[in-house]
Amino acid sequence: MAQLIADRRDVDFVLHEQLNVSDFSKYEKFGDFNKKTIDMIVSEARTLAIKEIYPTQPLSDAGCTFENGQVKVPESFHRVNELFLEGEWLAMADNPEYGGGGMPKTVSLAVNEYFIGANVSFMLYHGLTHGAARMIEEIGTEEQKNMFCKNLYSGKWAGTMLLTEPEAGSDVGALTTKAIPNDDGTYTITGNKIFISGGDHDLAENIIHPVLARVEGDAPGTKGISLFLVPKYKVKADGSLGEWNDVVCTGIEHKMGLNGSATCSLTLGGSGKCVGTLLGERSKGMRSMFIMMNDARQLVGLQGFSVATTAYIHALNYSRERIQGSHLQKPKEGGVPIIQHPDVRRNLLIMKSYVEGIRSLIYYSGTLHDRMAVAETADEKKFCEDMLAILTPIIKGYGTDRTMDVCSLGVQVHGGYGYCRDYPAEQLLRDCKIFQIYEGTNGIQAMDLLGRKIGMNSGKPFMAFLDEIRKTIHAAKTVPELGTLAEMAGNVLDKYSETVMLLGKTAMSEVMKAFIQATPLLDTTGDMVMAWMLLWRAKTAADALKNKPKAKDVPFYEGQIKTCEFFVSSLLPVTLGKLASINALNTAVVDMDEASFGTK
Amino acid sequence: MAQLIADRRDVDFVLHEQLNVSDFSKYEKFGDFNKKTIDMIVSEARTLAIKEIYPTQPLSDAGCTFENGQVKVPESFHRVNELFLEGEWLAMADNPEYGGGGMPKTVSLAVNEYFIGANVSFMLYHGLTHGAARMIEEIGTEEQKNMFCKNLYSGKWAGTMLLTEPEAGSDVGALTTKAIPNDDGTYTITGNKIFISGGDHDLAENIIHPVLARVEGDAPGTKGISLFLVPKYKVKADGSLGEWNDVVCTGIEHKMGLNGSATCSLTLGGSGKCVGTLLGERSKGMRSMFIMMNDARQLVGLQGFSVATTAYIHALNYSRERIQGSHLQKPKEGGVPIIQHPDVRRNLLIMKSYVEGIRSLIYYSGTLHDRMAVAETADEKKFCEDMLAILTPIIKGYGTDRTMDVCSLGVQVHGGYGYCRDYPAEQLLRDCKIFQIYEGTNGIQAMDLLGRKIGMNSGKPFMAFLDEIRKTIHAAKTVPELGTLAEMAGNVLDKYSETVMLLGKTAMSEVMKAFIQATPLLDTTGDMVMAWMLLWRAKTAADALKNKPKAKDVPFYEGQIKTCEFFVSSLLPVTLGKLASINALNTAVVDMDEASFGTK
Repeated sequence: MAQLIADRRDVDFVLHEQLNVSDFSKYEKFGDFNKKTIDMIVSEARTLAIKEIYPTQPLSDAGCTFENGQVKVPESFHRVNELFLEGEWLAMADNPEYGGGGMPKTVSLAVNEYFIGANVSFMLYHGLTHGAARMIEEIGTEEQKNMFCKNLYSGKWAGTMLLTEPEAGSDVGALTTKAIPNDDGTYTITGNKIFISGGDHDLAENIIHPVLARVEGDAPGTKGISLFLVPKYKVKADGSLGEWNDVVCTGIEHKMGLNGSATCSLTLGGSGKCVGTLLGERSKGMRSMFIMMNDARQLVGLQGFSVATTAYIHALNYSRERIQGSHLQKPKEGGVPIIQHPDVRRNLLIMKSYVEGIRSLIYYSGTLHDRMAVAETADEKKFCEDMLAILTPIIKGYGTDRTMDVCSLGVQVHGGYGYCRDYPAEQLLRDCKIFQIYEGTNGIQAMDLLGRKIGMNSGKPFMAFLDEIRKTIHAAKTVPELGTLAEMAGNVLDKYSETVMLLGKTAMSEVMKAFIQATPLLDTTGDMVMAWMLLWRAKTAADALKNKPKAKDVPFYEGQIKTCEFFVSSLLPVTLGKLASINALNTAVVDMDEASFGTK
Repeated sequence: MAQLIADRRDVDFVLHEQLNVSDFSKYEKFGDFNKKTIDMIVSEARTLAIKEIYPTQPLSDAGCTFENGQVKVPESFHRVNELFLEGEWLAMADNPEYGGGGMPKTVSLAVNEYFIGANVSFMLYHGLTHGAARMIEEIGTEEQKNMFCKNLYSGKWAGTMLLTEPEAGSDVGALTTKAIPNDDGTYTITGNKIFISGGDHDLAENIIHPVLARVEGDAPGTKGISLFLVPKYKVKADGSLGEWNDVVCTGIEHKMGLNGSATCSLTLGGSGKCVGTLLGERSKGMRSMFIMMNDARQLVGLQGFSVATTAYIHALNYSRERIQGSHLQKPKEGGVPIIQHPDVRRNLLIMKSYVEGIRSLIYYSGTLHDRMAVAETADEKKFCEDMLAILTPIIKGYGTDRTMDVCSLGVQVHGGYGYCRDYPAEQLLRDCKIFQIYEGTNGIQAMDLLGRKIGMNSGKPFMAFLDEIRKTIHAAKTVPELGTLAEMAGNVLDKYSETVMLLGKTAMSEVMKAFIQATPLLDTTGDMVMAWMLLWRAKTAADALKNKPKAKDVPFYEGQIKTCEFFVSSLLPVTLGKLASINALNTAVVDMDEASFGTK
């Protein structure tokens, strides 16, 4: 099968050679998932993704329809949805008690890379369903879990997340959706929500909406917010569907991309008949949200990454086939594939660096989840939890910023054809822009990193994070061909560490001055993580080259070393420049008069 | 009138305070264009742009239609087209002998910024018509000039440029369109062309196609290419329209954006009846093309810039109106306009730096055209010509790369709304992607800068270009509040100059090694030009502040200094990092085995 969506060799490299994911099979929880099983799972997913889901991607661009208050997904989604649910992929890494497949999260990430890369709009419905189910499993009552989890994990029902309102986007605390307690313990909900992905559709018989709302009289701002479960159709005690629950879809957005995913406006309780049950503790809705927020943000990072890997594969395939222009050193020998032109190769290598660096980062984050699941000590669990907290804004923010770069370069490599709808490149670029925005704009991710993550627990977890990078650098120093690269990366990391210290200190006394640098901090932190992952890969590849690899693996391993060389030699010097910029702590951004930005 | 498309205060600042464009009125050629007249012209254009053209922008996104071999532009274009042509805007800066308006090019750029910013798809038709007319005026015979120029400059007829073929995009020499000489001196043309902007439409009664083709038997490659004039309808000796000339539109592209502009596939001479006349000398078609190429590339830079300035104004207006989140230092005081958040301000200031730096650059390039037109010495003329040759890849390549950044940030500032079609931000982002590609991809612009422009005439013009930057830096050093900034910019310029020397030398002996760095060179050269323009602006503003400015101008001038401070303190350090990266001259990009880019 042709390489489409993702390079299988690289997927396997990260799973088995960099991260040794089959080692988790020594734990009872993951006992069934040895290397052979994992490979079989990935192969099966890849086949379904390439053969069935991928062809629906261009079709989905025509978008959903909204008629008579009902949303219909693109027709092509129905068949692949059946196949996807039959394969029990939705909850592959979840609790078997509720029908989950119990596989390591890391493996599910590789599987989802194929599925999401095949059609991110289609997979968004399942991502939301999965998120809602996880949330109910985490904080729901036994009754709620029994009522909803199985049907959500099986995909019989779908889930969403009702957060945003017209005047409450990034500022969640400003929401106005209201909950009034009823005598039977339920709440009557009224309000309007916008930008609800999968807010209505015809892929499932019921849709379960977790809704952020304020119980009448509770505190203003984020403090008084509670979380409720509001199904589209009420669920009877026996689990069967009851009457309609007064949730009305009032329209869908027309967007730049991601058109197969219905982005809905919903009115709850327009006729006063919308009833929900409290999910988690009253007035602790934001805390409950935050429990799931990291997962949701990691998922957005995965969405971006999966689109980016698809964009890279397309650009690579095109550059190998497209004959245009002669070789710079052999101008008289006629046309060559454009991959032979230095500027095209440079674009490809930028794409490859980021795609592979982020693949390693995301799969590594999967191992942290899996380590938590089998942790034998509290310290181990805490380490993983903290590490995930730190990596989340990087996966979401830095990851999706690079996705935008990769997808834009993907169009560029295709030349004029890249701008035409006949090729997938432009759709990938349009689809991916939203990842920088939803689940907290990347500006908010940057503030999360600077404001919460760096200083949490007196900065100890962040120091531990830097130590992990240092360990890899030290290990790479022992490999002769990587010594210089490791040295260079180490120097940049030292400079980076100083910068973080400075910024952390500044944030305590001069908050505006520090927060101007939030995005540059996120950006340079991501660069350090890329250096870490690519050095780790290069070390793994260098070791493999010493052990008589198969002939066909030699260029793959050598490519790992070259990619690391490119990143450290050509991109990390720019990181140094960015660090110098942060260190200058220039305040023009906030000093400037608002009127100076432009005439009103 | 609200600030839309462009900030009029800044347009005036560049025209009158930075570049003193009314000084050209001391030359007879531009005697009519004093400050008052110029302001009147810009005001008139601005009113037409905002009131009439701008409303057609969202409408044009639905695209052109293609039925029965005929392209129809969006319906809304017809009325504004009449107004545009009535106003005689198409040839406002052209030769009065053929109906042109004879105004300074610089003024026409300000005018076109408003028109193009109002609707780039619509203006593309006129840009092409203008380019075709200019080319005919430049290299046509008297007969051709008399036959075509007036009707093109008036917009009665339209023009195009038929260059690209399916297998000859960037590699023009690979084209296969054929010309066979007829006894009467004309040529019979056969071939297929693709990606022809305005290749067919219903805005004009005739369309004149300059066509690149090879006379049967002439040399292969670019050397044997000639240029022909092929009208859609033959033109009789008396200037009236004759029979159809066997030019068939076979389809239009469906694109990511720029949908109001019809991108056509054309078949010439499918019935053997397509006749053209030679334009310029036989086998000198590429040279003729290159005469116009700089103009065409500068136009693409202007297109990008005009979209970017519109994107900035929208983001700025939105950020002043949108209430979301509280002030970082006053968390309890409730929602504030998002322009008060440091990260949003930083995004806006990045956008402002580039938009204003590029406005100055583009208008400055206009003054070079105008200086050439009135040059009293050959040296002056040569200086301007060389300077334009050097600035062209920067205006086109760097300019449109930054446009992409600006438009992407424009969506970002709007949050989720930015991704929705109800707001103009996402269309601007979709529209602008093509500017990085057409008229030579930005990779080709970078190769032009490194391969042709730096070394031309033994590097003397390039040295003169650097001297111009240095002069501005020296002048800024005399202003106390700019001293440090000028010093910093000077240091980066020194480092840049060394890098260019190194790269120029490397290009002579190790071509692949050097050309890996073509894009980073273009990028850093552009950064230096931005520093130049922003220091020049800051110096101008600092001088103005000393001369008792009007109260309402104070924040404007202070904003100029702050914008320069931001660019030099926060973005130029990154340029230093990019220069270090170039200096490393790492060759991983070309050393890497093709197989190492990914499994086939």
